[in-house]
Amino acid sequence: MYLESITTPADLRRLSMDQLRELAEELRTRIIEQVSRGGGHLASNLGVIELTIAFHYVFDSPRDKIIWDVGHQSYAHKILTGRAAEFGSLRRFGGLSGFPKRSESPHDAFGTGHSATSISAALGIVEARDLKGEQFKVVAVIGDGALTGGLAFEGLNQAGHRRKDMIVILNDNEMSISPNVGALSAYLHRVLTGSFFKKVRQETRAILEGIPKIGESVAKIAHRAEGSLKGFFLPGGLFVDLGFEYLGPIDGHDIQLLIETFENIKQIKEPIFLHIVTRKGKGYKFSEEDPCVFHGVGPFEVETGTQQSAIKQSDQPNVCSQSWCEAFGRMLTEIAAQDPKVVAITAAMTEGTGLTPFAEKYPKRFYDVGIAEQHAVTFAAGLATQGLRPVVAVYSTFLQRAYDQVIHDVCLQNLPVLFAIDRAGIVGEDGPTHHGVFDISFLRCVPNLLVMAPKDLDELKRMLVYALKHDGPAAIRYPRGKMETNLSYLFHDFDLKKGSAEVLTEGTDLAIIAVGHTVAPSLKAAEFLRRNGVRATVVNARFLKPIDADLFISLAEKTGRILTVEENALSGGFGASVLEALSVAGVTGVATRCVGVPDHFVEHGSQKRLREMYGLDENGIYQAAMGLIDKVRKA
Amino acid sequence: MYLESITTPADLRRLSMDQLRELAEELRTRIIEQVSRGGGHLASNLGVIELTIAFHYVFDSPRDKIIWDVGHQSYAHKILTGRAAEFGSLRRFGGLSGFPKRSESPHDAFGTGHSATSISAALGIVEARDLKGEQFKVVAVIGDGALTGGLAFEGLNQAGHRRKDMIVILNDNEMSISPNVGALSAYLHRVLTGSFFKKVRQETRAILEGIPKIGESVAKIAHRAEGSLKGFFLPGGLFVDLGFEYLGPIDGHDIQLLIETFENIKQIKEPIFLHIVTRKGKGYKFSEEDPCVFHGVGPFEVETGTQQSAIKQSDQPNVCSQSWCEAFGRMLTEIAAQDPKVVAITAAMTEGTGLTPFAEKYPKRFYDVGIAEQHAVTFAAGLATQGLRPVVAVYSTFLQRAYDQVIHDVCLQNLPVLFAIDRAGIVGEDGPTHHGVFDISFLRCVPNLLVMAPKDLDELKRMLVYALKHDGPAAIRYPRGKMETNLSYLFHDFDLKKGSAEVLTEGTDLAIIAVGHTVAPSLKAAEFLRRNGVRATVVNARFLKPIDADLFISLAEKTGRILTVEENALSGGFGASVLEALSVAGVTGVATRCVGVPDHFVEHGSQKRLREMYGLDENGIYQAAMGLIDKVRKA
Repeated sequence: MYLESITTPADLRRLSMDQLRELAEELRTRIIEQVSRGGGHLASNLGVIELTIAFHYVFDSPRDKIIWDVGHQSYAHKILTGRAAEFGSLRRFGGLSGFPKRSESPHDAFGTGHSATSISAALGIVEARDLKGEQFKVVAVIGDGALTGGLAFEGLNQAGHRRKDMIVILNDNEMSISPNVGALSAYLHRVLTGSFFKKVRQETRAILEGIPKIGESVAKIAHRAEGSLKGFFLPGGLFVDLGFEYLGPIDGHDIQLLIETFENIKQIKEPIFLHIVTRKGKGYKFSEEDPCVFHGVGPFEVETGTQQSAIKQSDQPNVCSQSWCEAFGRMLTEIAAQDPKVVAITAAMTEGTGLTPFAEKYPKRFYDVGIAEQHAVTFAAGLATQGLRPVVAVYSTFLQRAYDQVIHDVCLQNLPVLFAIDRAGIVGEDGPTHHGVFDISFLRCVPNLLVMAPKDLDELKRMLVYALKHDGPAAIRYPRGKMETNLSYLFHDFDLKKGSAEVLTEGTDLAIIAVGHTVAPSLKAAEFLRRNGVRATVVNARFLKPIDADLFISLAEKTGRILTVEENALSGGFGASVLEALSVAGVTGVATRCVGVPDHFVEHGSQKRLREMYGLDENGIYQAAMGLIDKVRKA
Repeated sequence: MYLESITTPADLRRLSMDQLRELAEELRTRIIEQVSRGGGHLASNLGVIELTIAFHYVFDSPRDKIIWDVGHQSYAHKILTGRAAEFGSLRRFGGLSGFPKRSESPHDAFGTGHSATSISAALGIVEARDLKGEQFKVVAVIGDGALTGGLAFEGLNQAGHRRKDMIVILNDNEMSISPNVGALSAYLHRVLTGSFFKKVRQETRAILEGIPKIGESVAKIAHRAEGSLKGFFLPGGLFVDLGFEYLGPIDGHDIQLLIETFENIKQIKEPIFLHIVTRKGKGYKFSEEDPCVFHGVGPFEVETGTQQSAIKQSDQPNVCSQSWCEAFGRMLTEIAAQDPKVVAITAAMTEGTGLTPFAEKYPKRFYDVGIAEQHAVTFAAGLATQGLRPVVAVYSTFLQRAYDQVIHDVCLQNLPVLFAIDRAGIVGEDGPTHHGVFDISFLRCVPNLLVMAPKDLDELKRMLVYALKHDGPAAIRYPRGKMETNLSYLFHDFDLKKGSAEVLTEGTDLAIIAVGHTVAPSLKAAEFLRRNGVRATVVNARFLKPIDADLFISLAEKTGRILTVEENALSGGFGASVLEALSVAGVTGVATRCVGVPDHFVEHGSQKRLREMYGLDENGIYQAAMGLIDKVRKA
């Protein structure tokens, strides 16, 4: 076991090439073991083990800096930079983050989680280094998927222009989360297969060698000419056009080659674009075969690759077997059968957003635009101008990337684009870069937009149908995971009217107005309250914009106490909208309390644990309600 | 006068080439006249007159669609598509918009205002056309400046891949708003000057022709080979790499050449990238000489090019002679003299944000990253990790483009980046795409961020100094234009403490809590109130996050009436934050009213007119205060 001997990256330099190769296998085993127990990103991490070893062998972290784009591939980096002992706590509350995190280690030069940030961040570090007259190397590692993000291009554009000493490593695995799309991907594929490149060289050579009596010597001249024209003749011309020295493609699993290459480029003081080719899931049969499933994965059996969730599912009859995203995908596919105008768009999240069945059934009406959220939204706006009904399925946290497009391209023009906002609220182990706890606040201020949240899957379907008939933009937010409680026993107000909430239970002591999936724990909290002699009205808000102001005002007047519950930042969230409505109506003397996410970034940990911590479970809601009752009693 | 004879684009086809050339001059004169009277975008419009004529001559709008990127160059398009008679109302309240607007004309296929959206929108329209089996052409016109925006690249990436029938016209004037920067710009320059391209061809030709006895014929073979390798040998290889057929560069002021080229490319059913070269400000001496000044300009004298604002300024002694942005630029330059860690970043808005003096004095500490707001922010985050104090100067409306970067790269890592948010609030004639009325709402929910607004220029300086010493991210928002009232007579509380507001006048009937530049009209409103026997406390909020909750709560308890004033959306804005604070504190029985921007997009018109309309001037604030007084009196 060489792994135990590595406490700092410098320890790597004591190992031979063969020993480094063994170390790579040890790292693989360690990572597979860990992810099989606690879940996490597997395929991306197995793909960069040799790259990580070679980087830390050649460069001197933390003086030299590596910026991992997205950052879901930093497990080997974490283990090799002094965090091996804590690696068992990965993604657990209070444990190691699943992404680079500046506060966790000086070796994590820049925190990541979202894609395409690494080149910009690296260039910032480089410019600061040069202004301060310091000496160190800066390496950004970006995948071919993330490279399609506009931010990456903006970074390349400035970095190539500034001609600074920096290195961009393209980790090309020909597959981002979904199979890659776009011209850039096609371009890289041409470069990789080399057929285009080879054809050019062969044609040129054939012309020259075909000329009698000159033969070899002309070929030599042509070879020299080739050298002077490298941007044209070599692959990677696109990056040369953007001001980089292009090198590659090289095998990203050959440690010795990587080390030699790094030793060479370390000497160059210009912007280098190094193209390496790796295999996602490398070294573990099941993840090599299905890197998509093993991209982000829950606990699984190492021997069979079977996920535990698949095993356990049938044992829990009270839990809906379908997750929100699966239900969304199935429902949208059903709706699309009725309405040929419905088209679906995802930014490289076909599986994650549940759109696989839609994509299979309606390939011509399905667009995976790659990691390009901004484009996804403006593209949808264009589709909508022609009378189609585009649905952009996107995680709440990634919608932040397309905020201006939501405002400027969709809502300002009042175009009927539907945003299906998945992973809204607390997402769990992926942590602060992935929680979707701002969308209510940042969407609520945008005119023309309807914002809804369903209490259960049945209502999700109703809202999809409603939104796809509404003549304007709409958003439906729903959480990660499965619906924990089956609400089908409830009376349903089937008539979904714009801006109308739904009263689920009636009581005169206080009104609990809950958003989306917090309706279920609110109902449970109301049960606890009843046992304590407190009668609560429980309302399913349904519409977060516009809200059911008339109902909320009448409840405020009737009960004198309003409690709002939402899995979103309290600042400017749903609760604030209720306070605004009371203010506008001139209703005073009402005791109010808003339950939601306080003003700090939510750490990583299980959804259950985090919801408990922020009082977003049944017990927390109960406590908040009792606090409101007691306070007004005392007053 | 041919202009009068054009009521629809079809009328153009009755004119000869010579007549079209005369028409171009008439359009130029008409646009110069209009902008000299009412202000607007001049240089960009003068640059595309021939392009506009040729488009409408060859294509059949509105069936065929043209999407103007940014849209500030659509004046000739508006005149030629039936809006000549209304052109005098351009940018005036209730008149024509200065940008394409779908609700204004069917010829405005997609509304714009921000940059880099056109390719994505065009592709959306193209895909919808093909799904529906319709036949028409779609043309996106994008400037070389806007092409550096990541969204444009995301659009190119998908469009090149889909290989659909669409046309992208690169309107290359070698100058966006600020002189262009970045590798892409350098690349286009190489293509344009042709030296790179010529050198390649000459070298190849020289090699081949130098070979004895083969000479011409080999050159011919090489020529054929060239054809098959066009992506390598022709300029524009970068766009070919992205899947486009590249054509150009051609002279964008040669109507006949443009018409012939359009006739040709109209036949092609593949993605075409046509590179045309134009001159910004073409045909008007002063705008050709200084297109930067004549990019967006106020009224000016046609004969001299002198702007009226420059003439009038000295006649108004009560108005501060410096605009907010000029003051910011001067102040930051002063601060930078004391603190070498301060660096400034702009996304192609050096003049607009007032940074010209900074750029001149500290060129090494100044970064114009081009139209790339996302990169600007992540780049700043990178700089901040190395101990520098980056200041990102950006218009409020464009900060929407970098929202995820503000959250994910800056605030989550608690990095000390300062956002100098210019044009916050109502900007006037540029209208709904440019008003900065959402920033308080979308920034207030972001943890770790301080948000401030100064009541006057003196306080702006204080806040800059404060923010640049604060160990974390901060934002300062200030409006477009000049400070209308000099507040220097006021008592100043010089001690700027985190989250502390400033009481300016004291009165027991109500408290007016005003944000930034609304403090001045609030003070005037308080004077009117005093004459009516109502004594108001006027508070300068200073901090919008965190707010001075203790002060506001004590004022609520003391006066029983709180009026908040802000030039921002009411949904989730500053007023909401005060309501939230009262709720958290359990203060009930307080009458509250929030003055701000209601839940719709604000149209274009003068700042004065729009502020009056939304009750954001002294009179409106007075009326709102009286309403609050009366309501509570009645209750």
